[in-house]
Amino acid sequence: MRMWDHKVPGIPDDLFIKSDRIPGPTKEEIRVLTISKTRLHKGSYVIDIGCGIGSLTVEAALQVAPMGKVFSIDKEKESIRLTKENAKRFGVEDIVTCVYGKAPEAMYDLPIVDSIIIGGGLSQDVIKTSAKKLKVNGCIVINSILLETSYTAIVELKKLNFKELEVIQAFIAKGREVGRKTMMIARNPITIISAKKS
Amino acid sequence: MRMWDHKVPGIPDDLFIKSDRIPGPTKEEIRVLTISKTRLHKGSYVIDIGCGIGSLTVEAALQVAPMGKVFSIDKEKESIRLTKENAKRFGVEDIVTCVYGKAPEAMYDLPIVDSIIIGGGLSQDVIKTSAKKLKVNGCIVINSILLETSYTAIVELKKLNFKELEVIQAFIAKGREVGRKTMMIARNPITIISAKKS
Amino acid sequence: MRMWDHKVPGIPDDLFIKSDRIPGPTKEEIRVLTISKTRLHKGSYVIDIGCGIGSLTVEAALQVAPMGKVFSIDKEKESIRLTKENAKRFGVEDIVTCVYGKAPEAMYDLPIVDSIIIGGGLSQDVIKTSAKKLKVNGCIVINSILLETSYTAIVELKKLNFKELEVIQAFIAKGREVGRKTMMIARNPITIISAKKS
Amino acid sequence: MRMWDHKVPGIPDDLFIKSDRIPGPTKEEIRVLTISKTRLHKGSYVIDIGCGIGSLTVEAALQVAPMGKVFSIDKEKESIRLTKENAKRFGVEDIVTCVYGKAPEAMYDLPIVDSIIIGGGLSQDVIKTSAKKLKVNGCIVINSILLETSYTAIVELKKLNFKELEVIQAFIAKGREVGRKTMMIARNPITIISAKKS
Repeated sequence: MRMWDHKVPGIPDDLFIKSDRIPGPTKEEIRVLTISKTRLHKGSYVIDIGCGIGSLTVEAALQVAPMGKVFSIDKEKESIRLTKENAKRFGVEDIVTCVYGKAPEAMYDLPIVDSIIIGGGLSQDVIKTSAKKLKVNGCIVINSILLETSYTAIVELKKLNFKELEVIQAFIAKGREVGRKTMMIARNPITIISAKKS
Repeated sequence: MRMWDHKVPGIPDDLFIKSDRIPGPTKEEIRVLTISKTRLHKGSYVIDIGCGIGSLTVEAALQVAPMGKVFSIDKEKESIRLTKENAKRFGVEDIVTCVYGKAPEAMYDLPIVDSIIIGGGLSQDVIKTSAKKLKVNGCIVINSILLETSYTAIVELKKLNFKELEVIQAFIAKGREVGRKTMMIARNPITIISAKKS
Repeated sequence: MRMWDHKVPGIPDDLFIKSDRIPGPTKEEIRVLTISKTRLHKGSYVIDIGCGIGSLTVEAALQVAPMGKVFSIDKEKESIRLTKENAKRFGVEDIVTCVYGKAPEAMYDLPIVDSIIIGGGLSQDVIKTSAKKLKVNGCIVINSILLETSYTAIVELKKLNFKELEVIQAFIAKGREVGRKTMMIARNPITIISAKKS
Repeated sequence: MRMWDHKVPGIPDDLFIKSDRIPGPTKEEIRVLTISKTRLHKGSYVIDIGCGIGSLTVEAALQVAPMGKVFSIDKEKESIRLTKENAKRFGVEDIVTCVYGKAPEAMYDLPIVDSIIIGGGLSQDVIKTSAKKLKVNGCIVINSILLETSYTAIVELKKLNFKELEVIQAFIAKGREVGRKTMMIARNPITIISAKKS
């Protein structure tokens, strides 16, 4: 039985298998905004760097199925295990290939792809290698929670001549019912940086 | 020629046909979050109340095509004209049916649907009629920019026994390049209220 | 020895005496914005309703000292104890009078004041009694973390003919150093509602 | 006649004399947060770099009066003129000394001060010179609307061994009455970076 059969991204956070040792999932609303910037098609190939528990991997896989592929990289064995479990849970285990290792090295043997998502482990080298692994007009989408990382990403993408650079800061608060009233609980602000390869 | 052939929601704002007399489009990121909460499928039927220039209509139509339907209501003739033009521009004119009139009256003759989006013209009566026009488990998604409207929507949805009520406030800022640097420009905060019919 | 001798509001959060049983302090930045809206003078009289650990009480007392007064109300004994301790810690114990009890009843015997701060325990009755306890042109400042409470406050202040009504939503994130980089940690959004008695 | 006689910072935006050619004032809530981080006393000496129409200058001057000093630097003649006019309007013309010129050069002849506010014209050189012009434990407070500038400021302050570095992002929205309801209008997010000289 499939847990989720909607076409639009936005799987509720609590449907994912979690672990105390790995942060995640990427919160629903941030996942939705991130996936939107990947501009995926049916059949697209995607690399998800720093896949964590696999929440972006699953959302991307649901978009590119049944012919596309998602290559999910993480340097934590536990993340690889959880990503595989979540892929199975959402019926996309045939779409997802997990790669245990550190980017950029773990990207070297992967094919050229349509989109690259960087949720963790960002560095100049990862962006440089991403530029090599992307098709022309392919999308790179970076989720950054560190001010310095946002800066590095913007500078590096400009240096590599990426086009249509977009920087978005999302402050999202979600209501929690407290005594029949609605208390707004903030999520940490996130910067979503996206661009296309020239 | 189709202007946009991506599967995930998130059409760039400047691809829509606009008018000085009608506000809109709903900004890209808000559209993406709103469409996400509609939980659409291929084949879903949708009502879009207060469709404005038709940006949410088009995004919904792209998700439900080729068998679904979007009924787009607005009390401004100019909105109806723009919604039709934008539907044509994005190749979904066969999916979209425009209804010129004021909700809730303009909803009376519409069929039962899977999701209702309320982008404008919210009132208690519109929510009451929406409850009648939704399938069980159907989603209502309300975009509110007025504090009092958010309150009314929450109170009314609780009274009508809607379930899985979610309230999200999204503060989004988007970078604009100023002298080779990135100035973050805020968009007005929006409250997205969603729930399912019991 | 005085712990803090600056003239401008904004005592760092960790200088207050805290307790596991009482939430608080009101975060530094929210305190600063709230105190700003009270438009205090040296010599002003203030009521602080729902004083919690006394952080707004202390900031207000530092502004109105040495001739002003702050009356701090809370229905929790522990809050009264902490407010007294914090008043002593910041050298304003002679300015602060603690009132143990529930508003509005606990306000009945207090004098007419220049400003009223409502940090907790807001209700229509508290606003009505506040209107009676304020001088003409006196300021009411309400901190609300509940959507419904913000609505009630706005409606009630309009009904009571308050003037210069202002509604502010503040989303504040504060950097935390993580591996020599800056991670932005969100605080829950707060609505600050202020107005003057006609 | 004095226009404003409150002790706490937070002069309403529309009380300042403005000009089409110079942006400003710094919005009330941002001014309040900024002044708070300067930790001013009566008698403090302050430098305000990029003073614009003088709104931070006036707020600082009201805090340090009657014995303190504010040195206000701007490279636009029109800014110097407006700052002088606003200082007169708020009765602090004897506290404020305007310096027409570009920082850091325009700072060379100024005395050592307690606090430096950088509202515009930030550069590495301005921060370096600021470090020389500050007393030990003196505060530097930077308002940044550019992502790259925030980064530069943080890196430079760390390099110069500043302590108690704080980074705050403030997203503020203010209600505007629309048809007897409250529409929240966003202000652009601002990053406030503060630190003390070691």
